[in-house]
Amino acid sequence: MTDVLKIGDREFSSRLLVGTGKYKDFTETREAIVASGAQIVTVAVRRVNIGQNANEPSLLDALPMKEFTYLPNTAGCYSADDAVRTLRLARELLDGHDLVKLEVLGDQTSLFPNMPETLKAAATLVKDGFKVMVYCSDDPIQAKMLEDIGCVAVMPLASLIGSGMGILNPWNLQLIIDQLKVPVIVDAGVGTASDAAIAMELGCDGVLMNTAIAKAQNPVLMAGAMKKAVEAGREAYLAGRMPKKFYSASPSSPTTGLIGS
Amino acid sequence: MTDVLKIGDREFSSRLLVGTGKYKDFTETREAIVASGAQIVTVAVRRVNIGQNANEPSLLDALPMKEFTYLPNTAGCYSADDAVRTLRLARELLDGHDLVKLEVLGDQTSLFPNMPETLKAAATLVKDGFKVMVYCSDDPIQAKMLEDIGCVAVMPLASLIGSGMGILNPWNLQLIIDQLKVPVIVDAGVGTASDAAIAMELGCDGVLMNTAIAKAQNPVLMAGAMKKAVEAGREAYLAGRMPKKFYSASPSSPTTGLIGS
Amino acid sequence: MTDVLKIGDREFSSRLLVGTGKYKDFTETREAIVASGAQIVTVAVRRVNIGQNANEPSLLDALPMKEFTYLPNTAGCYSADDAVRTLRLARELLDGHDLVKLEVLGDQTSLFPNMPETLKAAATLVKDGFKVMVYCSDDPIQAKMLEDIGCVAVMPLASLIGSGMGILNPWNLQLIIDQLKVPVIVDAGVGTASDAAIAMELGCDGVLMNTAIAKAQNPVLMAGAMKKAVEAGREAYLAGRMPKKFYSASPSSPTTGLIGS
Amino acid sequence: MTDVLKIGDREFSSRLLVGTGKYKDFTETREAIVASGAQIVTVAVRRVNIGQNANEPSLLDALPMKEFTYLPNTAGCYSADDAVRTLRLARELLDGHDLVKLEVLGDQTSLFPNMPETLKAAATLVKDGFKVMVYCSDDPIQAKMLEDIGCVAVMPLASLIGSGMGILNPWNLQLIIDQLKVPVIVDAGVGTASDAAIAMELGCDGVLMNTAIAKAQNPVLMAGAMKKAVEAGREAYLAGRMPKKFYSASPSSPTTGLIGS
Repeated sequence: MTDVLKIGDREFSSRLLVGTGKYKDFTETREAIVASGAQIVTVAVRRVNIGQNANEPSLLDALPMKEFTYLPNTAGCYSADDAVRTLRLARELLDGHDLVKLEVLGDQTSLFPNMPETLKAAATLVKDGFKVMVYCSDDPIQAKMLEDIGCVAVMPLASLIGSGMGILNPWNLQLIIDQLKVPVIVDAGVGTASDAAIAMELGCDGVLMNTAIAKAQNPVLMAGAMKKAVEAGREAYLAGRMPKKFYSASPSSPTTGLIGS
Repeated sequence: MTDVLKIGDREFSSRLLVGTGKYKDFTETREAIVASGAQIVTVAVRRVNIGQNANEPSLLDALPMKEFTYLPNTAGCYSADDAVRTLRLARELLDGHDLVKLEVLGDQTSLFPNMPETLKAAATLVKDGFKVMVYCSDDPIQAKMLEDIGCVAVMPLASLIGSGMGILNPWNLQLIIDQLKVPVIVDAGVGTASDAAIAMELGCDGVLMNTAIAKAQNPVLMAGAMKKAVEAGREAYLAGRMPKKFYSASPSSPTTGLIGS
Repeated sequence: MTDVLKIGDREFSSRLLVGTGKYKDFTETREAIVASGAQIVTVAVRRVNIGQNANEPSLLDALPMKEFTYLPNTAGCYSADDAVRTLRLARELLDGHDLVKLEVLGDQTSLFPNMPETLKAAATLVKDGFKVMVYCSDDPIQAKMLEDIGCVAVMPLASLIGSGMGILNPWNLQLIIDQLKVPVIVDAGVGTASDAAIAMELGCDGVLMNTAIAKAQNPVLMAGAMKKAVEAGREAYLAGRMPKKFYSASPSSPTTGLIGS
Repeated sequence: MTDVLKIGDREFSSRLLVGTGKYKDFTETREAIVASGAQIVTVAVRRVNIGQNANEPSLLDALPMKEFTYLPNTAGCYSADDAVRTLRLARELLDGHDLVKLEVLGDQTSLFPNMPETLKAAATLVKDGFKVMVYCSDDPIQAKMLEDIGCVAVMPLASLIGSGMGILNPWNLQLIIDQLKVPVIVDAGVGTASDAAIAMELGCDGVLMNTAIAKAQNPVLMAGAMKKAVEAGREAYLAGRMPKKFYSASPSSPTTGLIGS
């Protein structure tokens, strides 16, 4: 296996990361996630039981940690302090597990990231020994700052969380991909299979999604579609697509160099 | 196997149809086509040897007819007469094989279809007992005329042949898909994996491509990507995607009903 | 005045052509059309009174023929015969006026043109001495056929009549503009000012619209906006826009040659 | 004049703001700017002589301050300190003129804003009595922070400075427009007339551009086109466009609520 996704010193063969929320029950959660082929699952520590409530069903039973790499996240946090506190709790609950997803949100309507608080929290968490994967805007300058702080992966939104609008600004993603050395993983906004393929064709290292699978009419079937779409997009990227031309007989390729070409 | 592509009375599990031209040699042709999982291969009767030249290597050796369903096509024909003549020759060469792809081109620069000649040739060929799959513009009225004539599949272009520009007008494709009963197969214009996925998510029954695979830097790898992309798009279509919303918290889904939603 | 729109041997300074239907009353019709600066007004002979009903208010009173160039059209016709009959009636009603707009529709839902019937009617009308401006699909081959038949202007749709969806396939329009010598006027689909500007920036010779003005919340204000938008788009086309670049410091202009660049 | 652009306590009838750089000479600068109808002109204090070099031609001669409102900017500044210093110098050179445009850039390749430094500089300048118009990313959360700091106008990029790529993410602009009370002025990225119209149709309060005019093949003609395009877009916005529908006969308007609808 040569084409691996390397995050920090962990290696993964799947480039599809999935959320665990919004499913009917843990059974559906598990079925869909197994169908997706995902190895990394992200969990909202504030919303899902991973041991906080000892007497209730735990996600850890449906998705055992020996089978999946957990990525506790800070969904629902609106300040650096909240986010840091939440991830420290997660580390405790998960016996020192240090790979986390930081997200600090800007408001409850758009769920757009609050970048100043995100930068602050990232700095604290990195110093505190966490391996931080970080949800962020598609601002290439601040994405670079997050890499410089020491985050192990940068995860710009494609469009708003839960919107399913797809990749609204591929050009900003391109700037980020061109400049960063750590993996760039599109997080949020993917709505259907082609969105995931497009992200991978741009050169993203992976895609994280939740609603697109959980809120499809048939989540398990969609999970399988997403698995194939991410692989298709990755392979198309590696295969090197044909140049775009206005028409076949055109002497040059006026659109070469564009996104996706 | 419940999700089959039915063309006339033939059934196929693969929804990816591929061309056989533009490869380095028949070995690469075969490797790429096997990787694509395609069951139907189209061949330009005027350009490729399928027995016309008895002493030269024949495509039939690389891709035996017991392994693949042949779809002789009329690439290079600019009139109904030429196209009809060419397909009659093909039928003779292939021992009465009646499944064909009609294309009558409008000019040598754009390779856009000549629709009046296409309609004329389609009528002649159907009367002559051919099962006609027909390359056409994305005009929903003329697509319906081709169905009414008795064509077994209608194949609108996504963009110009060999351009790799992707799906330029999904709305016209949608009108065609909504109105026709025979399979609608996007033919021409696909450039990369996500293009194929988008076509399938729109509700197309299949995708036909050649240059996107043959002119990728790594045709065999791209062929596999296309196989996955077509399956991903089909499964996403069947799974029923999440609704698009401007933001997750929006009470309704203002973009429901749009293409791809 | 050097930048004139020449249709047949008539010359116009305005490149905005407008419909006369869908207004509250003839007063609003007149106010909006005056605000638009249009010199050519198109009228649905089957729906609007231009003398057929001698005792009812006539559009000719609100918009006198000495002030505007009339363009009787065949809205509502679904066959060549119907269209030809309708325009012969119009010529009679308008004292031999020979400048007409041919449209033959494919079905009542999409109002997409029926191209075979359009081609047939165009041939008959041209032979019969009409100056034919013709509504058509964005098929570059059939657009050329209409020019070859002798039409004085070719009017491809941008999107479906009354849809306001804007220009769905600028590439096909570009092919038409590049190949035709007669004026190319976008007809149908413009929804707001920028749509009209985009059409003109592509190199169209004019824009025809009705619903976008008549069904704006404030038709008279929108009419003025459209006047400016068409002029802005035309002037931008003539001025020669800056090249597109991914970023300013990029050594070359990878997007030069694209639509609108 | 009821439809005015109000910035702080200043009022303007023109919603087109223009830069003064990249022209052949001050004569061309003046001709183009007069043709644009702009009342506000922005000047790069680090590059253009507005009195720093007493013996050289000054922009103030070509564009007198009694005729135009000056907007000194910090083009070329990569830190808050640099930007603050530059604007204090400008205030001195322009006799206490306090309306300024802050821009702190992130790197020399993309010229994308450095938002942390921009926020810092904005806070300092507002406290120091400046009326700050601020170039920024299209991040709605940080745009709101800039308003909360006391900036008098927020100016998100449409695409990278000097790129002419147009509006890459209208959705983020929409979020900003919906949330802010101060004027939102698109700054950077406009390439041709329709781009400006689209920005105004979204509900932006104004558009600032430089390269699109200065680097058109005919800058003066393009300046006039931009004037009309901004007015057309503004009037279309005020007039209330028709709803978008897939086709005219569709019972509802599935695309209502979308950008530009």
